[in-house]
Amino acid sequence: MKKLINDPLRVVDDMLEGFVAAHSRQVRRIPGTNVIVRKDAPVKGKVGIVSGGGSGHEPAHAGYVGKGMLDAAVCGEVFTSPTPDQILSAIQAVDGGNGVLLIIKNYTGDVMNFEMAAELAEAEGIRIAKVIVNDDVAVEDSTFTTGRRGIAGTVFVHKIAGALAERGASLEEVEAAAKKAIQRVRSMGVAISPCIVPAAGTPGFVLGENEMEVGIGIHGEPGIEKVSVQPAEHVADGLLARIVEDMKLDQGDQVAVMINGLGATPLMELYIVHKRVAERLAEKQIRIHETFVGEYMTSLEMAGCSISLLKLDDELIDLLRSPADTVAFKTC
Amino acid sequence: MKKLINDPLRVVDDMLEGFVAAHSRQVRRIPGTNVIVRKDAPVKGKVGIVSGGGSGHEPAHAGYVGKGMLDAAVCGEVFTSPTPDQILSAIQAVDGGNGVLLIIKNYTGDVMNFEMAAELAEAEGIRIAKVIVNDDVAVEDSTFTTGRRGIAGTVFVHKIAGALAERGASLEEVEAAAKKAIQRVRSMGVAISPCIVPAAGTPGFVLGENEMEVGIGIHGEPGIEKVSVQPAEHVADGLLARIVEDMKLDQGDQVAVMINGLGATPLMELYIVHKRVAERLAEKQIRIHETFVGEYMTSLEMAGCSISLLKLDDELIDLLRSPADTVAFKTC
Repeated sequence: MKKLINDPLRVVDDMLEGFVAAHSRQVRRIPGTNVIVRKDAPVKGKVGIVSGGGSGHEPAHAGYVGKGMLDAAVCGEVFTSPTPDQILSAIQAVDGGNGVLLIIKNYTGDVMNFEMAAELAEAEGIRIAKVIVNDDVAVEDSTFTTGRRGIAGTVFVHKIAGALAERGASLEEVEAAAKKAIQRVRSMGVAISPCIVPAAGTPGFVLGENEMEVGIGIHGEPGIEKVSVQPAEHVADGLLARIVEDMKLDQGDQVAVMINGLGATPLMELYIVHKRVAERLAEKQIRIHETFVGEYMTSLEMAGCSISLLKLDDELIDLLRSPADTVAFKTC
Repeated sequence: MKKLINDPLRVVDDMLEGFVAAHSRQVRRIPGTNVIVRKDAPVKGKVGIVSGGGSGHEPAHAGYVGKGMLDAAVCGEVFTSPTPDQILSAIQAVDGGNGVLLIIKNYTGDVMNFEMAAELAEAEGIRIAKVIVNDDVAVEDSTFTTGRRGIAGTVFVHKIAGALAERGASLEEVEAAAKKAIQRVRSMGVAISPCIVPAAGTPGFVLGENEMEVGIGIHGEPGIEKVSVQPAEHVADGLLARIVEDMKLDQGDQVAVMINGLGATPLMELYIVHKRVAERLAEKQIRIHETFVGEYMTSLEMAGCSISLLKLDDELIDLLRSPADTVAFKTC
């Protein structure tokens, strides 16, 4: 295992120290926790937005803390749900008096722990709403999940909900916008090489020399099939076809596209994938309004990518384009 | 070779098509070339800024085209200098009547081809200034270079020169600011795994199972030594010591820091490296004004990182913080 780390059991703590040192004008860490909050939290009167999950998906989720997106990110150990007490600390820190929305990726552990934290917060008189993101169309049930998994499309949900909350909308309104985004976002990914969880020290799965896994999860959970590595055009076609079919996209529809690198895939390759995605959508007369190409939700040093599509309407276009100023997502 | 590509000989063209498809509101490609320019180029009266070099370093340099940074990026084949005719096309496209600054990374091929293009442009009556970035303190001469190599610190030079040009400064003023940034920026890197140039199909260099190369170049040029993989703290200490010594940094100095991922290194590890860098600089009473952690100048899927420090004064702080709106670098 070759990694630029100190102690495999201390990677999350070291990372968060580095993160806060780098971005101390924008964020702070709640002492004694792995919770990163906006520097100015709680913002009085604003609905607070909390997300999080296992670490190893950077820049998710701490990179999305800031104006126009999240108020707090709760960072679990690598690929491990954060505990309810940590989530509760985040909720308490960002509650500005008008309630807190929890954006949860659909993994059994995450859902359970966020729900326990929600109950504890409600017992303290804090109003809570919860949404669960399940954008991954690859498989219905998986290693850590009942139902579909939540992957990179979650970042769109952060942006939509965060933009509306920033405008002073109510908890019900912000929750409704987040649910609308969830209903309209779909993703699917492929891996060509695995990653190593530091504390484990060995790859989470094995691929042959010329093999890739279609439908992989962001923790290396099995996908649909292992196949020979294909040209980028075929990979893009395969992922896109499943997404478009599942969303029932039709000509005249408008979308946002995210080509997300899983960690070790060069930006060059992500753009090569996007070339085909843009061509295919143009053929189908589906209009791309906004495109995001880069690393938004990674799996440590896994190589591969996911494609996410968000079906837009005027409200979502407006929210997607409204200002955001976080470490990893800026709309000037 | 596992890559998300179509044809190893067509990667740059495919990438640029994908790039322009993704970012057509901000940039365009000059037809028949591998030159990416600002959508609104030439900006009348503004000094034009052109950079570029071999591809494979994404987001450098096309990701830095836009308001407040570059007017054009000339994209060579992978790890190969762009040709003079392509550079000339870029110069012609961005000349707004007040001259064009060329920001060149110090590689023999790049310097030769940019200089030839400069002569051709001057023969057409376009005023040209040139600066050569040589921020890598690792080695004095190298595989493709006489003198020190230009690496990730180049991004600071783009930002400083671009900010001043955007304010309407003269060619002489923009050139002077770029030279000042070059005099004040130093970098050094380390690799823990190599990358594969698509057209070659095999790794550019070999490292043992527990080996890393200190002082590596961004094309895999040899560094100072191969050593056993060390904890991130030792890696950071080693790189930082050489940089600080070379810059003659002293207590009370102010710097910007860039922790640059070479391609396959998780953001988590870059923040772990930064934690130590921030601690060490604090011990030395050197104040960090701005921190950049991420992939700014990569080497395809090489794993490793570089550290860059830019010594600041009030002018450079102001220019570094002034607005930039490019694909890969935004200051809101």
